[in-house]
Amino acid sequence: MTPRPATVSARSVDDYRDTVAELLAHLADRPDEQVPVPAALGRTLSADVASPIDLPVFRNSAMDGYAVRAADVAVTPVTLPVGGVIAAGRPGTEALPAGAAVKVMTGAPLPPGADCVIPVEDVQADGARIVIERGRGRGEFVREAGTDVRAGELLARAATVLAPRHIAALAAVGLPTVGVLTRLRAVCLTTGDELRPAGAALAPGQIYNSNGIALAAALQADGVEVLEVAHSTDDPAIFTDLLRSAVARADVVFTSGGVSKGDFEVVKDVLQPLGGTFGPVAVQPGGPQGYTVVDGVPVLSFPGNPVSTMVSYAVFARPAIRALAGLPAPESRETTLLTSVRSPAGKRQYLRGRVNADGVEVVSGPGSHLIAGMAWSDALVDVPAEVTSLPTGATVRILKL
Amino acid sequence: MTPRPATVSARSVDDYRDTVAELLAHLADRPDEQVPVPAALGRTLSADVASPIDLPVFRNSAMDGYAVRAADVAVTPVTLPVGGVIAAGRPGTEALPAGAAVKVMTGAPLPPGADCVIPVEDVQADGARIVIERGRGRGEFVREAGTDVRAGELLARAATVLAPRHIAALAAVGLPTVGVLTRLRAVCLTTGDELRPAGAALAPGQIYNSNGIALAAALQADGVEVLEVAHSTDDPAIFTDLLRSAVARADVVFTSGGVSKGDFEVVKDVLQPLGGTFGPVAVQPGGPQGYTVVDGVPVLSFPGNPVSTMVSYAVFARPAIRALAGLPAPESRETTLLTSVRSPAGKRQYLRGRVNADGVEVVSGPGSHLIAGMAWSDALVDVPAEVTSLPTGATVRILKL
Repeated sequence: MTPRPATVSARSVDDYRDTVAELLAHLADRPDEQVPVPAALGRTLSADVASPIDLPVFRNSAMDGYAVRAADVAVTPVTLPVGGVIAAGRPGTEALPAGAAVKVMTGAPLPPGADCVIPVEDVQADGARIVIERGRGRGEFVREAGTDVRAGELLARAATVLAPRHIAALAAVGLPTVGVLTRLRAVCLTTGDELRPAGAALAPGQIYNSNGIALAAALQADGVEVLEVAHSTDDPAIFTDLLRSAVARADVVFTSGGVSKGDFEVVKDVLQPLGGTFGPVAVQPGGPQGYTVVDGVPVLSFPGNPVSTMVSYAVFARPAIRALAGLPAPESRETTLLTSVRSPAGKRQYLRGRVNADGVEVVSGPGSHLIAGMAWSDALVDVPAEVTSLPTGATVRILKL
Repeated sequence: MTPRPATVSARSVDDYRDTVAELLAHLADRPDEQVPVPAALGRTLSADVASPIDLPVFRNSAMDGYAVRAADVAVTPVTLPVGGVIAAGRPGTEALPAGAAVKVMTGAPLPPGADCVIPVEDVQADGARIVIERGRGRGEFVREAGTDVRAGELLARAATVLAPRHIAALAAVGLPTVGVLTRLRAVCLTTGDELRPAGAALAPGQIYNSNGIALAAALQADGVEVLEVAHSTDDPAIFTDLLRSAVARADVVFTSGGVSKGDFEVVKDVLQPLGGTFGPVAVQPGGPQGYTVVDGVPVLSFPGNPVSTMVSYAVFARPAIRALAGLPAPESRETTLLTSVRSPAGKRQYLRGRVNADGVEVVSGPGSHLIAGMAWSDALVDVPAEVTSLPTGATVRILKL
């Protein structure tokens, strides 16, 4: 009789997540990247950005109106001659003659000597003269240079995820490019002779390949550039070729399938001799996990059941991936369980849940193949390893998808 | 004396937002688009999607183990001959001989006659025979066809914004493409002789052009495809050419600048004769607004101060644009004001605010040129038109950016 394999004690979820984070930690040191400001939406600033210029660049008018000396309009009504007009974009370097007004458009520079602007609405124009009925104090409707931001002052902090309002500010100070965190580059390799591409006819025993597409979508949603999604049969030579090509280009490689206890575990069979660590984590779905460093590149190997692949990514990789991308941590919080659940002892269970105003209800079953059911969920319900049942109304932790 | 222009009564914010929504309403009728499932992340389903197939496609094993008849393992320990092995991807059409076991991998089809699976962990293998120490009931570790989703059953609802979990389900049922709402196509036209592109040297009176870049970023964040961002001088011929080119391609055109009461208002000067409606809205920033339908294409004209452009978009256009893209409405809710504010009578004021756990504090000033200051905000604080001051602790409505 061949002896049963020695029982390998399963690692905890937290322990394995930490291992994955350590495996990826060196990627925090990657160089940043200069991208054009218009292309920087959603990217993460790699460093503080200081304004290169004063904003406003120069003293200018807040209104379409007339630049005057406040002293000249202290008593109203007053009639002043109009000494010209300054459109936005004109230099406006000629001084305002005493006792006169100059017409200015919004954003136009104030002529030296002017210290307030009378809005066009408060003026009656009479050819070359204006009648001002309401005076204004020094500084009214004047935008002083540097009152929005001064040259050298902080415009946006490192680690800011750039929203339209940040893009607006970066553009307003004339920056053509901005330094952002480089996107992580990933390759996803799926394995399994039974998998067929979308649109193909299925022979008996075959199913559609969803893991690569799904994992790529999850990575893209977390700011990762997916260089390639490729599929390997269970032939080790083919998997090895794809793996070599992947580690030559990617910062991190994900594999799905081929890590369990079957007779044909191509991922484990190829990676274990390269130093890979494969073994159970006390979790469902997603128990069999593996990691390897190939030519310096971390390779994370998830089990092939579709829900297992997605949950493995969400639980083990996503926190580190988002942190490396400079994105906020996945939302995790406590809420009320609206469905009673049973759970196997000794394994932390991630059930598919749907959050509503009252709490979270479990949708679909616990099976790791229920990928259509998972589409109705928007959170994972985290049932601790030692818990075997929870009643309706219990407090549970959820991890938002 | 030329008379002052007759006072045009300003429209309310709600009224003008409704006008913009009506102007864009016909865009809801645009045809949908089939896109490859891997490219559909973040897109909005245009119709319900039913599964074309059963999932699981066929009855299969949930474990690496041995397919048996439950009746044959009712009394344990029991020794059974192993009649072969079925890998995932094999047809598995040969019936299980009575009193025998067949080795099956996870996902492999169960042979006809088998009704449960003994996990490999519960078995001692001995050459061509296995010793089973723990029996299993009918159906254990068996995934029946169609138990995740049945052919014809709803997989995802119309209007779903596709997250990775939806992509996973669509891929798992083998759909190569999926119907989604077509992206709205926009062109952004900026105007003003004083504006210079990023990186250029500024002559006196010139500033950097940020409105086109900022508006494009805001539109892209709301799922709009920005076909072009172009800049016009204040020359009506140049603006007209850009406008004609824009309406020939875009679903909606945005302009910034040239709508106020100055002497050089190129947007108003060109569009009013084409039937455009220009006039004040009782709001700050963003008072002067205009809209025109040119060759059937709505053209929304925002004022040119950078904050005015961004607030105009957020307040007047964004709700309709997001609804047309199938995205959730911008978040709007009440919270506590952490800064006392003053506000001009008769104009609804949108101050820049930053939300924290206690409420919202006003950041930067009310000036419509304070675009750098706006980068520190993440919400607009909505001060009603009739309110002239609010104390710290007041309840205010905010509109999240």
